[in-house]
Amino acid sequence: MIIREATQADFQFIWPIFREVAEAGDTYAFSTNTDEQLALQIWLDTPRKTFVAVEGSQVVGTYYLKTNHSGPGAHVCNCGYMVAQDYQGKGLATAMCEHSQVIAKELGYKAMQFNFVASTNTGAVRLWHKLGFQTVGQLPKAFEHPSLGYVDALVMYKWL
Amino acid sequence: MIIREATQADFQFIWPIFREVAEAGDTYAFSTNTDEQLALQIWLDTPRKTFVAVEGSQVVGTYYLKTNHSGPGAHVCNCGYMVAQDYQGKGLATAMCEHSQVIAKELGYKAMQFNFVASTNTGAVRLWHKLGFQTVGQLPKAFEHPSLGYVDALVMYKWL
Repeated sequence: MIIREATQADFQFIWPIFREVAEAGDTYAFSTNTDEQLALQIWLDTPRKTFVAVEGSQVVGTYYLKTNHSGPGAHVCNCGYMVAQDYQGKGLATAMCEHSQVIAKELGYKAMQFNFVASTNTGAVRLWHKLGFQTVGQLPKAFEHPSLGYVDALVMYKWL
Repeated sequence: MIIREATQADFQFIWPIFREVAEAGDTYAFSTNTDEQLALQIWLDTPRKTFVAVEGSQVVGTYYLKTNHSGPGAHVCNCGYMVAQDYQGKGLATAMCEHSQVIAKELGYKAMQFNFVASTNTGAVRLWHKLGFQTVGQLPKAFEHPSLGYVDALVMYKWL
């Protein structure tokens, strides 16, 4: 498995992963009916960098990296990670998160922040903790879960 | 003093207020050298609504309201408030914040979140607490203050 910067041509392979994650509606703050054009803008055009994890010729995961706030907040980046359904539980999120921290430091960022982690996404929360992120905020009922209703969202943070 | 929705023509009066606040670099996550065109985009074009506080014919304060996150986060809004230097300490921020909560509820939002309050901005923190906001997150050294260096930023939140 290699992780490399994404090209526009990769988006056809990113899109099914994005759509699946967004449609589930239980992890990311994207509308469940986000269309392909908006997804392209969110995942590939707006971020500072986007990467894909590739196994053989198959895109099995992807992440973006962007500046979280401008000006006095510009030393903190934000990332989002997605793994294809069939490739979950194989350490891909760990590999991409570690990769993103190296890239973030290369780009001069001092810290990484996840703004909106569903508290019910316990696998992700556990993984980010293991990778050195702290829960620094808890937003009461800020995440509308498709089956559980309003649940808390977490803010997670790591000084790099 | 009245608070009304801003028009494009108001921006010429919003801009000096914005520039002053951004240049100081000690409260908002905007670059200190944000230019007029970017400020227009940030303050007037991107938000869902923008308001001005007007005394006589003079714009003395302004705020925006926008959806903080899409999809599962879309019931939480975000606002930013600015008061002209000469009109500070007259209750304008309170008036605008209370106004924004009424508008937010009218628009169907369930909660309001401030994502990035400099912890050194003690006047603002005290005011938001007084108006019912809780500090729900503390981001270590996430705000680069022009004279104090890296200071914490706070996440503040109110269920409406």
